[in-house]
Amino acid sequence: MKIAIDAMGGDHAPEVNVRGAMLATKQWKDIEIILVGDSKQIDPLLDTTFPNITVNHTDEMISGDEEPVRAVRRKKNSSMVLAGKMVKDRSADAMISSGNTGALMATGLLVMGRIPGVERPALAPMLPTMDNVGLLALDLGANMDASAEHLVQYAIMGNIYRTKIHGMDSPRVGLLNVGTEKGKGSEITKEVYPLLEQLPINFIGNVEARDVLNRNCDVLVCDGFVGNILLKAMEGTASNVFSVLKVELTKNLLRKAAAAILKSSLSAFKKKMDYTTYGGAPLLGVNGVCIKSHGSSDANAVKNAIGQARNAIEKKLVDSIASEIRNEGNNR
Amino acid sequence: MKIAIDAMGGDHAPEVNVRGAMLATKQWKDIEIILVGDSKQIDPLLDTTFPNITVNHTDEMISGDEEPVRAVRRKKNSSMVLAGKMVKDRSADAMISSGNTGALMATGLLVMGRIPGVERPALAPMLPTMDNVGLLALDLGANMDASAEHLVQYAIMGNIYRTKIHGMDSPRVGLLNVGTEKGKGSEITKEVYPLLEQLPINFIGNVEARDVLNRNCDVLVCDGFVGNILLKAMEGTASNVFSVLKVELTKNLLRKAAAAILKSSLSAFKKKMDYTTYGGAPLLGVNGVCIKSHGSSDANAVKNAIGQARNAIEKKLVDSIASEIRNEGNNR
Repeated sequence: MKIAIDAMGGDHAPEVNVRGAMLATKQWKDIEIILVGDSKQIDPLLDTTFPNITVNHTDEMISGDEEPVRAVRRKKNSSMVLAGKMVKDRSADAMISSGNTGALMATGLLVMGRIPGVERPALAPMLPTMDNVGLLALDLGANMDASAEHLVQYAIMGNIYRTKIHGMDSPRVGLLNVGTEKGKGSEITKEVYPLLEQLPINFIGNVEARDVLNRNCDVLVCDGFVGNILLKAMEGTASNVFSVLKVELTKNLLRKAAAAILKSSLSAFKKKMDYTTYGGAPLLGVNGVCIKSHGSSDANAVKNAIGQARNAIEKKLVDSIASEIRNEGNNR
Repeated sequence: MKIAIDAMGGDHAPEVNVRGAMLATKQWKDIEIILVGDSKQIDPLLDTTFPNITVNHTDEMISGDEEPVRAVRRKKNSSMVLAGKMVKDRSADAMISSGNTGALMATGLLVMGRIPGVERPALAPMLPTMDNVGLLALDLGANMDASAEHLVQYAIMGNIYRTKIHGMDSPRVGLLNVGTEKGKGSEITKEVYPLLEQLPINFIGNVEARDVLNRNCDVLVCDGFVGNILLKAMEGTASNVFSVLKVELTKNLLRKAAAAILKSSLSAFKKKMDYTTYGGAPLLGVNGVCIKSHGSSDANAVKNAIGQARNAIEKKLVDSIASEIRNEGNNR
């Protein structure tokens, strides 16, 4: 199977992408990787004894601060857009990028296109949980507003991802809401609740933001606006706690000694809260496998994203989504 | 000035309400307090040497788990509804309750009524910040959905509260959003942004959930659904951090010793994160002063809520809101 990598995307590009590709082809013999990007920068980093890696040269790239849709429309030869085109014309089975998230979503929508029947693709990262298992949340930023029908499709796609790719048996699908009772919430959550009840999934009802860290569900359904607020609130709180602890723990010698004793448990907890350790986020609903790896990914994270893409290809993720979405449409 | 207290509301009612009332009349000689509730329970707790406290007897009360609107409609002689009626017919200048939040909002809306021109009252608690100053957030739960016009009114009311009651000079009003750039967000946030720019307030633009703890604004404007998700996500994360720390800090003797050294700083931080220490939440936009004190309030918290109500009466909060909302309506 062929996996195209936007070699110029991410904070440490192209180095970590090249090294991640080498790690991946070493581990999985059944993949071929196409590094899309500037060969002048890529070639010196690439060990040519790795037979399953080729370079697809382009000078153009989309940077992290460009306006997404505009960048994708204008930079038709950028590494990201070209990787997307390879999936579109089936010269690759999947694409991966650690670059501009908005641009990747635009590439998914405008270059790769949607699976027939899917109204909106959704970005579905894993959120950290205290048991280190994580939960899949969608949509986390592909679309700010979502109708009830969009949320229904998010639930279906999230359920498929956890079942097929994570091998979960009957993942618990929850609707992010302000209380667990059925009648709670906004007009949209009230409208979507009975629709989710009718789906052939394990819908467990409303779930609250305060219990996300305790893994109150396996698939968390929300619109991109609320999902972003949730994620940022959790990140901001955790990061502030650590800042305060850092100050408190270095105030005097005695405290420094106490801090040394607690160092391992504090860093274990910090890692627990870091959602980048849970792998890349699939862009679900686009007509091809597309994985967003975190901007700060190292070579190992890129390798893991490649493994994730490989898994999604093998398990026929896109076909499954197409078929379930078609079924849901027929049942309405 | 006269302040009616729902003496039967809250986890520790009526005791903390009676004691809070005594503490308040001791501190402020210009207030009269009417304790509304069961005199059989209140009288034994009340020191009759306090001249400025009277009891308005009723047997009926609304409990914490009752369906709010239904409870307020049916229990017309409940302590909460009677306190609301006293404000409505001007036999009290303010009311306070530590009881059922939903029922108090319904009491505000159905019994006290809205200030002319105000479309939706908003519940406006203080959110904790690392500098212990806090920020006023609204709406945090009075209404799940909000139109752009509702958000405009929240901004106006929040600005008045911080200016008049907290004595802030030009409080920074921020719009909760997924990014700080002007074009970011949902349809509603995009629609309201230019409207907020036109108000005679210090609108600083979009603010992000991750920076709320760093007091990125003084008045945070959001709809009740998103506000609730934000608050619960922050609470849930903080509470999980403390649970983990507690486990880690008691794993062995050495760690227990380390924990003892850090105890004071950890509890200071825990207190910092506890939004109940920032006072009661005004229900802004109802035609009278109405303060929601936290359900777990102790006598001191009740006393502080009384002080807050006294301040709001003295500064003519309701008149100010009425006048600013009228002005805004005229300028449209």
